[in-house]
Amino acid sequence: MPTSRLEAFADGIFAFAATLLILNLTVLPGAPLGDQLKSIWPSYIAYAVSFITIGIIWVNHHTVMHQVSHVDRLFLLLNVLFLMLIAFIPFPTRLLAQSINLPAQSNAEAAAVLYGITLTITAVLINALWRYAATGRRLLRADASARVVQGINRSYAPGPFIYLAATLVALVSPRASAALYALVALFYVIEASAFGR
Amino acid sequence: MPTSRLEAFADGIFAFAATLLILNLTVLPGAPLGDQLKSIWPSYIAYAVSFITIGIIWVNHHTVMHQVSHVDRLFLLLNVLFLMLIAFIPFPTRLLAQSINLPAQSNAEAAAVLYGITLTITAVLINALWRYAATGRRLLRADASARVVQGINRSYAPGPFIYLAATLVALVSPRASAALYALVALFYVIEASAFGR
Amino acid sequence: MPTSRLEAFADGIFAFAATLLILNLTVLPGAPLGDQLKSIWPSYIAYAVSFITIGIIWVNHHTVMHQVSHVDRLFLLLNVLFLMLIAFIPFPTRLLAQSINLPAQSNAEAAAVLYGITLTITAVLINALWRYAATGRRLLRADASARVVQGINRSYAPGPFIYLAATLVALVSPRASAALYALVALFYVIEASAFGR
Amino acid sequence: MPTSRLEAFADGIFAFAATLLILNLTVLPGAPLGDQLKSIWPSYIAYAVSFITIGIIWVNHHTVMHQVSHVDRLFLLLNVLFLMLIAFIPFPTRLLAQSINLPAQSNAEAAAVLYGITLTITAVLINALWRYAATGRRLLRADASARVVQGINRSYAPGPFIYLAATLVALVSPRASAALYALVALFYVIEASAFGR
Repeated sequence: MPTSRLEAFADGIFAFAATLLILNLTVLPGAPLGDQLKSIWPSYIAYAVSFITIGIIWVNHHTVMHQVSHVDRLFLLLNVLFLMLIAFIPFPTRLLAQSINLPAQSNAEAAAVLYGITLTITAVLINALWRYAATGRRLLRADASARVVQGINRSYAPGPFIYLAATLVALVSPRASAALYALVALFYVIEASAFGR
Repeated sequence: MPTSRLEAFADGIFAFAATLLILNLTVLPGAPLGDQLKSIWPSYIAYAVSFITIGIIWVNHHTVMHQVSHVDRLFLLLNVLFLMLIAFIPFPTRLLAQSINLPAQSNAEAAAVLYGITLTITAVLINALWRYAATGRRLLRADASARVVQGINRSYAPGPFIYLAATLVALVSPRASAALYALVALFYVIEASAFGR
Repeated sequence: MPTSRLEAFADGIFAFAATLLILNLTVLPGAPLGDQLKSIWPSYIAYAVSFITIGIIWVNHHTVMHQVSHVDRLFLLLNVLFLMLIAFIPFPTRLLAQSINLPAQSNAEAAAVLYGITLTITAVLINALWRYAATGRRLLRADASARVVQGINRSYAPGPFIYLAATLVALVSPRASAALYALVALFYVIEASAFGR
Repeated sequence: MPTSRLEAFADGIFAFAATLLILNLTVLPGAPLGDQLKSIWPSYIAYAVSFITIGIIWVNHHTVMHQVSHVDRLFLLLNVLFLMLIAFIPFPTRLLAQSINLPAQSNAEAAAVLYGITLTITAVLINALWRYAATGRRLLRADASARVVQGINRSYAPGPFIYLAATLVALVSPRASAALYALVALFYVIEASAFGR
């Protein structure tokens, strides 16, 4: 089985999950619009952080698929589970944006934990995808270079631990946790700007 | 007519139907978020079961298209009807998730029956698609092996009966029926894990 | 400019407009679900008619693009306007399904007229697309056969008049108009079944 | 890294952002439908203007990608930021359509400013994308003609200033600003009709 149709399905879900994030932005009909548009600033940040995070994961998924020459059923299944997490991201994004500024700290905590669990499992699954394809060069292209394979191994490995740490921080301070999610996205933006050429 | 544009249209509908499932997850603004996120656990399971089910059907559709070299208008029409059922899945998924834990058993029954009818017709249509393409090798690639064709015949045939049986179970116990829908998805996950290499 | 990216954009909008139709199906949380699922039968029919109609237009658009070798800016613009109408279809579909069974006949009339205007303009635009490409063989493939070109001319020409007639019928009887929209879709289904091989 | 998967992701987001615009059209269940369908005319215009604007930007993005032979990480990142703005467009579109006819001028002003800021940043980002690719022919195809490159430079440069001006007009008259957004779209439609062959 060729990889092109898996890429089309995956790109559709990445693009759609990112676009659906806009439905999280809402205002009330009655209240003054200018004030509301200022007061929902956490929603803008949440939109940007989740959109960029999905964009980064999309680049990573592309990096995996670029090394893969063919797929088997278990790899397809891992992809379906991985994409199930991608499509889930808009839900905790909305909850986190809506609760982070409320007085009830427990709501923000629940939202930040769900957001963190979602990204932790996503990071685990992209590692699982990659390790399954790369172990013994099971699904790799014949000309995949050992240096590139090692590089991907190294760059994906910290993801689950970073997001797990940010999830645990949410139990102490949801705002610090939200700041960490934003910092991870920002780190990739800066890194790509500085070294991305 | 080549098959590539049908695949693009189909992949789009598979991807959007799967991603739209996330809109089924909702919480009320007032109530404590942590409690609500726990109490909507049937929605998580429904999301996962329907997402994986759509993923499995997508793999099956790919398997059909991989054997097909060209399409005619009746095959296109069967595909439109089939995709109409795929795009329908988010609706009974939401109903089933919202009603399965309510005291009113009749609501859960109606939702489980609608979910089952949807998947039964979907399974009938993918069999119809395949049989139409394969009968007399009408639309098959010249090099499609008889062994593969027989294998697809055998593996798709039970689908309608399994889902019809689960639909009938809903008339007795909606929860048992919902468990069956989940078990079918889980069976494919385990089978792919065990034999999918 | 090659035609492949226009097809990708168009297929995305066709697939997404068709999938969004499912958001038109809604039930109220309180009332018995079984009764509601029966009482919203016009929504099922509206879903099926609009989904099949979009599917038919998608096949027609593919037929046009299959004869076209390259595109220019005016053809791109006509495509954007045409796709704008395709993406509009879910809105009058919802209105028609929700109003057709209400006592207030005037609501159903407004909905049926809007549905008809939408499909009439859509049919005008696919004719415009095709005529622009085909006149003087402006954008056609060098090997496009004159017989196929004539055949497309003939088969697309009646569309605007059929939908305009059904729109005018809505001013007398919205239900007769809705039945006509369904009959047009059904006609294509039967025609494809009988002659589509 | 090849450009094809970036195009697939971008085309998906363009197509979904355009199609999501239809969710902005809503009517109230109680009131007479015919009257409502007339009174929401700003929503139709907003739908058309934003759909055509997204269509124009899609054509421009295609024009950029057509000159580009390969991409690097910074170019990918600029694309993610650019697509983040594209997917944002449905939100200010809805706000502008809903507020432009209300007595409270301040609501329309806030909506028109947000709409203008969104399109201004979008126009800045497509210039940034193009300049990054074209400077020193960093990512261009070997056969990209200097004349075409100069032409794109010239035709994209005014965009940010035009939208910034229309944004500033919103501070004086939101309706004049909305008319300017419509005129820009109309200008491209007329230009493509007159010179697009």
